[in-house]
Amino acid sequence: MLKTHLTVLITTLIGCFSNPAMTNENMQNKEPKKDSSSIALVIHGGAGTILKKNMTDELEQTYRAKLEESLMAGYQILENGGSSTEAVKAAIVIMENSPLFNAGKGSVFTHDGKNELDASIMASHDLSAGAVAGVSHVKNPILLADKVRTESKHVMMAREGAEEFAKEHNVELVDQKYFYTQRRWEQLQKVLKSTPQKSQLSEDEAKNSDVKNSKFGTVGAVALDVNGNITAGTSTGGMTNKRYGRIGDSPVIGAGTYATPLCGVSATGHGEYFIRAAVTHDICALVEYTDSNIQQAADTVIHEKLVKLGGDGGVIGLDKEGNIMMSFNTEGMYRGSIDKDGKVTIKIYKDH
Amino acid sequence: MLKTHLTVLITTLIGCFSNPAMTNENMQNKEPKKDSSSIALVIHGGAGTILKKNMTDELEQTYRAKLEESLMAGYQILENGGSSTEAVKAAIVIMENSPLFNAGKGSVFTHDGKNELDASIMASHDLSAGAVAGVSHVKNPILLADKVRTESKHVMMAREGAEEFAKEHNVELVDQKYFYTQRRWEQLQKVLKSTPQKSQLSEDEAKNSDVKNSKFGTVGAVALDVNGNITAGTSTGGMTNKRYGRIGDSPVIGAGTYATPLCGVSATGHGEYFIRAAVTHDICALVEYTDSNIQQAADTVIHEKLVKLGGDGGVIGLDKEGNIMMSFNTEGMYRGSIDKDGKVTIKIYKDH
Repeated sequence: MLKTHLTVLITTLIGCFSNPAMTNENMQNKEPKKDSSSIALVIHGGAGTILKKNMTDELEQTYRAKLEESLMAGYQILENGGSSTEAVKAAIVIMENSPLFNAGKGSVFTHDGKNELDASIMASHDLSAGAVAGVSHVKNPILLADKVRTESKHVMMAREGAEEFAKEHNVELVDQKYFYTQRRWEQLQKVLKSTPQKSQLSEDEAKNSDVKNSKFGTVGAVALDVNGNITAGTSTGGMTNKRYGRIGDSPVIGAGTYATPLCGVSATGHGEYFIRAAVTHDICALVEYTDSNIQQAADTVIHEKLVKLGGDGGVIGLDKEGNIMMSFNTEGMYRGSIDKDGKVTIKIYKDH
Repeated sequence: MLKTHLTVLITTLIGCFSNPAMTNENMQNKEPKKDSSSIALVIHGGAGTILKKNMTDELEQTYRAKLEESLMAGYQILENGGSSTEAVKAAIVIMENSPLFNAGKGSVFTHDGKNELDASIMASHDLSAGAVAGVSHVKNPILLADKVRTESKHVMMAREGAEEFAKEHNVELVDQKYFYTQRRWEQLQKVLKSTPQKSQLSEDEAKNSDVKNSKFGTVGAVALDVNGNITAGTSTGGMTNKRYGRIGDSPVIGAGTYATPLCGVSATGHGEYFIRAAVTHDICALVEYTDSNIQQAADTVIHEKLVKLGGDGGVIGLDKEGNIMMSFNTEGMYRGSIDKDGKVTIKIYKDH
């Protein structure tokens, strides 16, 4: 993995965030095999009430290092002329394999003490898409979603059926205990204690920050490759204490993930609102049908439409020129990007 | 139920279809309790290779009578000042309870000889939505989807979990054998015979009309009530021989069903393409962001975008003024409407 050094830069990106950024000296010295102006990558590791005062320096550095590792994994593929699909998978697998995020290894627990993971991926060049919902034994759901995209006539598979497909296509399966982490288990116990016999969260409970934040931590990536193809992908463990085979927005094409030749978007947040607002498709529709650029489109959906509905969360994305977009209406969002000029940005809070 | 008589009328609807229509004398004589200019209803019973030459007069009349019964069930509610949500549910329940359509009672069989039903519903006034995927014991999935919409914080529930929620909310459950129909069983055997051990349909098989048509028959309804609220709903048995817990477009908000204060749409067709094109949301986005009216928007998506992707099927819908939209790129679509002037239309083929 390439080493990076933090430097603060002012970015020209439009919207609610200014952009202190990282530059990568090694990367800038390296002769890219393809024109690096045509490649770009953006990732997120979830949005929520992420406040500096609640974070130790050590934990913050751990998050930043993992986001950087994810970015580098994806960017190396793009630099070597690889596809945006491979880059998105590589970036997401790094986060799925980390206990830091609510996806793969670090997935939250359901009401019944299980882990049910969702993921989806979509490629712009042929609008092909794959999604899996409620899988319990798949180490990297994003890889299974991509197998659904490339190896089946279906777009969306659920639960045991999706795992049967995984077996037939040699996607790595693991025992449920692989997903056990003390932190997530305690999160479930805390939520269960506050909502012992209820079948759903009440409004008061939904306002409780422990419950609220236990929904977040979804990961995602959007890449533009040297051939101009955009891929968007999203992976999640869903919502702590979820029941009834709940499916959130992450595996729903048009809600959690969407890609067109003009625009790719991955979302994270309170999934029910993201489904109802068809967030990722709506952003791409604004880019296609109006004068909005991708940042303006995302801000319209996240800061206006979604706020009106009552939905918390955020999105990342990029357009066909490689312009990076990030937008969220929460306190923070784990996020990072390497833009078309090779500039690396990693941020957690509103402005840094 | 009110009796109707067929008369042929030329309609003013824009698009690919002219509109021989039914007028309902009783209905026109009846003094509506609310201003009938503000209410409208449109339904579909699936699109596909429906050709006059393959249809007996008797079967055709049976379909037309059932579509009429569905329309009347929904319209009576609207006429009495009831909500668009109640009207959509009433119209869809009639079709779910009939063996004629691929929804509820008449649902197709999965690869394993089971029935896995999907449904969704969305209301414009608060963008609330509910969806269920892969339920096997729910007599009327549209009623369960609406319970998810009104009685849970979730939008989408799958399989056993959705049925657990159904039990807790007294939604009628039935034995799997309720869904057995000789016709659907034979359809599965025919498809299995042509694709014995394969995990997916090949391109050749997908072109075979038996296989192709076995995908269709989804039902849906969109209503505008006296308060100006639009509701859209969709229900299906999915695709014959489906595997891997496949989820089609019907329970995907933005694909099979979408409603905004401007526009409501329900889709039927080859679900995978409808998910990738986010068909129902895209139509509503065109209405919201461009000068297109709902018929033009639907024709753009169904006859241009979807054809380019290779997707077969159709949509029905209406806008806030009660203008009816129908659009399909197949040979036929079972469909009917009662427009804002109370004019009743029932059609099966391209032009009648």
